[in-house]
Amino acid sequence: MKIAVLLFNDFETLDAFGPVELFGRLTDLYAIGFYSLHGGLVKNKHGVAIATEALDRLPQDLEIFIIPGGIGTRSEVANPALLEKIKSISQQSRYVLTVCTGAALLAKTGLLDNRSATSNKRVFGWVSSNGERVNWDERARWVCDGKFYTSSGVSAGMDMALGFLSDRHGLEFARKVAQDIEYHWREERDQDSFKIES
Amino acid sequence: MKIAVLLFNDFETLDAFGPVELFGRLTDLYAIGFYSLHGGLVKNKHGVAIATEALDRLPQDLEIFIIPGGIGTRSEVANPALLEKIKSISQQSRYVLTVCTGAALLAKTGLLDNRSATSNKRVFGWVSSNGERVNWDERARWVCDGKFYTSSGVSAGMDMALGFLSDRHGLEFARKVAQDIEYHWREERDQDSFKIES
Repeated sequence: MKIAVLLFNDFETLDAFGPVELFGRLTDLYAIGFYSLHGGLVKNKHGVAIATEALDRLPQDLEIFIIPGGIGTRSEVANPALLEKIKSISQQSRYVLTVCTGAALLAKTGLLDNRSATSNKRVFGWVSSNGERVNWDERARWVCDGKFYTSSGVSAGMDMALGFLSDRHGLEFARKVAQDIEYHWREERDQDSFKIES
Repeated sequence: MKIAVLLFNDFETLDAFGPVELFGRLTDLYAIGFYSLHGGLVKNKHGVAIATEALDRLPQDLEIFIIPGGIGTRSEVANPALLEKIKSISQQSRYVLTVCTGAALLAKTGLLDNRSATSNKRVFGWVSSNGERVNWDERARWVCDGKFYTSSGVSAGMDMALGFLSDRHGLEFARKVAQDIEYHWREERDQDSFKIES
């Protein structure tokens, strides 16, 4: 299954590379590519500079589209060219996974309207303002609604990726992957110990 | 404080980017750079291609040297040019942090001789064979001995990075950083729930 990870300047490092670590290990099942609107090196404030292809070069038979969050989403929610691409790719892709404030980008396209979704509890107000018709779940660690998986903040993306693997390949399979990276998977998707700050 | 992350082909994604996420957020305290033996793009099997500088261009006042693991360590333990660099940089650096099989590279330089260290429980035999005079700790999640921090497998690098932040800035500071990325930090360094497989 082909996976495309969307990158943009000032993406959050772990939002992208947490799920990449988990899918990336399963080389017989998943192949990962990194994409940005125009291709080339994408940078963030952590000193990371990653080589990407342009979104126009996405494979036709994309299965999984991953959208990370990060401070860069604050400007990208006002980038119609990127939002248009996110919308069309998400419509064609079999599954769409967002991490943290990546949900704001997906919500902005309207594709999450009348669906359940979640995001980072610390910036929940801002994210939810980008999708007023979304059924925002304030308690979940991650949410699956149809083809759309949305996770809470940063490290929750790893729990969601394992949840996705569990849904596709079974719980024991996902537990084995977590074990392989000595990761303590939070298997409970509905109840996050992190709460919205009032 | 300047941080250098050593990369080599087929490094493990999360070994590097887990700690990078944690230090990277603290932009007023830490500045991260990525380095490889000769510089340029470094790639791994997860599709990641990251821009690096050559190790010769490391800043003189380096404070923290991070060595990730990954399948690439299997060949790099037989790369004298890299090992020589790792040795001299580790001697000059104020702290050295290894994740997973990164401990094999550091052990191979001899700098861990007569010191306590740990590594991934699943490949403990191979790692420890690279440093027969090291006091390998088979139980720890991570170990600090003087300036050397070594962690167990992959995601343990994040727990160790938080432990490092706790040692430098206090427990509550580290807890706040974990909270900021909605990460469930395993604070207990001495007892890892992952055991050596017999």
